[in-house]
Amino acid sequence: MVDYYSRISSRARSLKPSEIREILSLTEGKDIISLAGGLPGPEVFPKEKLASISKRVIEEFGDKSLQYSPTLGVSHFREEVSKFVTSKGVKVNEDDVVTITTGSQEALFLLGLSLIDPGDSIIIEAPTYLAALNTFKFFGADFISIPIDEGGMKVETIEDEIKKAIDAGKKVKLIYTVPTAHNPTGVIMNDERRRQLIDVANKYDLLVVEDDPYSYFVFDTEERFVSLKTLDTEDRVMYLGTFSKILSPGLRLGYLIAPSKVVRSVELAKQIVDLHTSTLAQYIAMYALKEGVVGETIENARKVYRTKRDVLVDALESYLPEGSEYYKPKGGLFAFIYLPGSIDTTSMLMKAIERGVAYVPGRNFFADGSGSNALRINFSYPSIEKLREGVRRICELVKEEINVA
Amino acid sequence: MVDYYSRISSRARSLKPSEIREILSLTEGKDIISLAGGLPGPEVFPKEKLASISKRVIEEFGDKSLQYSPTLGVSHFREEVSKFVTSKGVKVNEDDVVTITTGSQEALFLLGLSLIDPGDSIIIEAPTYLAALNTFKFFGADFISIPIDEGGMKVETIEDEIKKAIDAGKKVKLIYTVPTAHNPTGVIMNDERRRQLIDVANKYDLLVVEDDPYSYFVFDTEERFVSLKTLDTEDRVMYLGTFSKILSPGLRLGYLIAPSKVVRSVELAKQIVDLHTSTLAQYIAMYALKEGVVGETIENARKVYRTKRDVLVDALESYLPEGSEYYKPKGGLFAFIYLPGSIDTTSMLMKAIERGVAYVPGRNFFADGSGSNALRINFSYPSIEKLREGVRRICELVKEEINVA
Repeated sequence: MVDYYSRISSRARSLKPSEIREILSLTEGKDIISLAGGLPGPEVFPKEKLASISKRVIEEFGDKSLQYSPTLGVSHFREEVSKFVTSKGVKVNEDDVVTITTGSQEALFLLGLSLIDPGDSIIIEAPTYLAALNTFKFFGADFISIPIDEGGMKVETIEDEIKKAIDAGKKVKLIYTVPTAHNPTGVIMNDERRRQLIDVANKYDLLVVEDDPYSYFVFDTEERFVSLKTLDTEDRVMYLGTFSKILSPGLRLGYLIAPSKVVRSVELAKQIVDLHTSTLAQYIAMYALKEGVVGETIENARKVYRTKRDVLVDALESYLPEGSEYYKPKGGLFAFIYLPGSIDTTSMLMKAIERGVAYVPGRNFFADGSGSNALRINFSYPSIEKLREGVRRICELVKEEINVA
Repeated sequence: MVDYYSRISSRARSLKPSEIREILSLTEGKDIISLAGGLPGPEVFPKEKLASISKRVIEEFGDKSLQYSPTLGVSHFREEVSKFVTSKGVKVNEDDVVTITTGSQEALFLLGLSLIDPGDSIIIEAPTYLAALNTFKFFGADFISIPIDEGGMKVETIEDEIKKAIDAGKKVKLIYTVPTAHNPTGVIMNDERRRQLIDVANKYDLLVVEDDPYSYFVFDTEERFVSLKTLDTEDRVMYLGTFSKILSPGLRLGYLIAPSKVVRSVELAKQIVDLHTSTLAQYIAMYALKEGVVGETIENARKVYRTKRDVLVDALESYLPEGSEYYKPKGGLFAFIYLPGSIDTTSMLMKAIERGVAYVPGRNFFADGSGSNALRINFSYPSIEKLREGVRRICELVKEEINVA
């Protein structure tokens, strides 16, 4: 038999299996309350309307919607996406190009491939979106971790960190941020820091990746926060969006809005990665945009998630042991909780699963090994009853662990 | 403004824009007969049935079909794919894992990422599938080009080439082949060579990638050619398939069937490339398989493409100048034609476009710069009238070029 192990490329060997996935794979098929994923609540999917749209786009435009399509995406759909984000206050410049990607994960991958050389430094929030961390790591990035508070990334500390990095001979390439309804903490970067961030990017000639899956789900204000892309005057900001949270993740549609010079590389990379994204999915989302289904889904999901957020906060207030800390999520799908004492949430996860509940250990959201006493809880997917019961089980376990220690 | 060029990674700089794409982009929106692509004829898309299936899988299974799904693919769909290929005589071993990919392009990319280190040698047919060539090139592969004849790759010459490569200090890693209804020539590897290929892979401990998009479209016999995967007794063969030609390219669904040890790497890579392939597309194809729609589409497309192949051959016989050479395609979607004399099909393409017809210059299908007097013609996409007229225009141009030279 073939010794495959010796044939695996050195690139692929650097891919480490995620410990969470390993543990969570144990939960498959079991009756476990999962607060681990980042899934939309299926009750917000506009099933009937999408069923009708799918039927129509195949019947009426099947010659095109079932056919191959351009690498950057279906032109009309790209225009609709541009109109949509513009209507949400995101500035699209004349030189910007909309690229449709197979989920925003692919946009991260294509940007990583296009921009990151091994050893390049990337400024991130600590904690940050774990899949972005893993993707950039694959391309050999180093990370500069900037702490956050209720007002988002502590942008005022970036400049010192950049200076240190430059002194250490590092090439600081870009800032990656989820400024609005941050994953995993649900905080929102305040306007002053947004301006500061653009200033520091200008001053140090840095690129900025603004990842924006959650700005449609801000719960306590009708205000929309100004996007970094809109504040940018020097074409530094590349903007990532997704249909996963505002329509359906099963369509697997994300988008990248970025200056043509970057997109040139992204397009060449996408040609060899997957040639193009599902044409049919693009047609479905295009008509969901045109016919207001995306707008309705956002409105509905925002209400549903706000209720669930309130249930979560209520459950946390009831059950969390004293000394725990978290920010009440202002938006998004998650809360991030620091537990008191020396609890290790990674080793605790196995026990939680035995009690029928799963979460993501905090360590996975940091590049520097911190967060071992933290955990992320998702509130968009579970039912209200399961959410409350899941939180109760986790907190009960945490209290026992504290007492043992 | 930002100097993006200096920020592009060295990896991305190695991506060269394809000259064909550059030229073909000039044809967009113009009234040009395209014999260049590899598109199915839209008349074979089972529009009504897919419209009805899409509606149903969203209405009945929307909670799942619109949701995120596992990286390797939707379990039931993976089982259906395994049953389907088994029913076509492709052996799936107990240790084999079916991975659903975003088109078979992504399967090539994930295999390249998982297996190819810079400098590894890959044995290919000359000519071969140009996207495979470009993908493996990106990962730094070198190529050993094996000529073909009417019976496919001249497998009997592989051993000498391997010896030469080993003497030159090369690491020969795998054989990539489209054995049945080859792209771009439409030839079929004969059974004896298939067995020889497996023998030489065993002897020199090589992996084999069997790319099989076209074996459903063999025109002049009801016989199915035994797949390399079926002949393999040492788990060397990784098998690639796609729904693009047997159902719809717009779904963007391919699959890889390979031993678990390779798939482990492929799965980790896919997690960062695009997390998973469209759930909805997988549900649609799953029911198209279950309900016999794939089978009907294959049967219909085979007839349509056989007729078009006959039209093409007839047109070539009528219009090609003396001294031209090609194999009558036994299957697939293409014919590959060598023109007499010193015609350069790359420089001729611009003139062809001016006359309202496009093809792919032959050079793109070779790793070694040969094929400059060859061209590939697609016969699945154009209507019969356009196919005949397109061939007539190309041949007229060729004759003029010969007279000028």
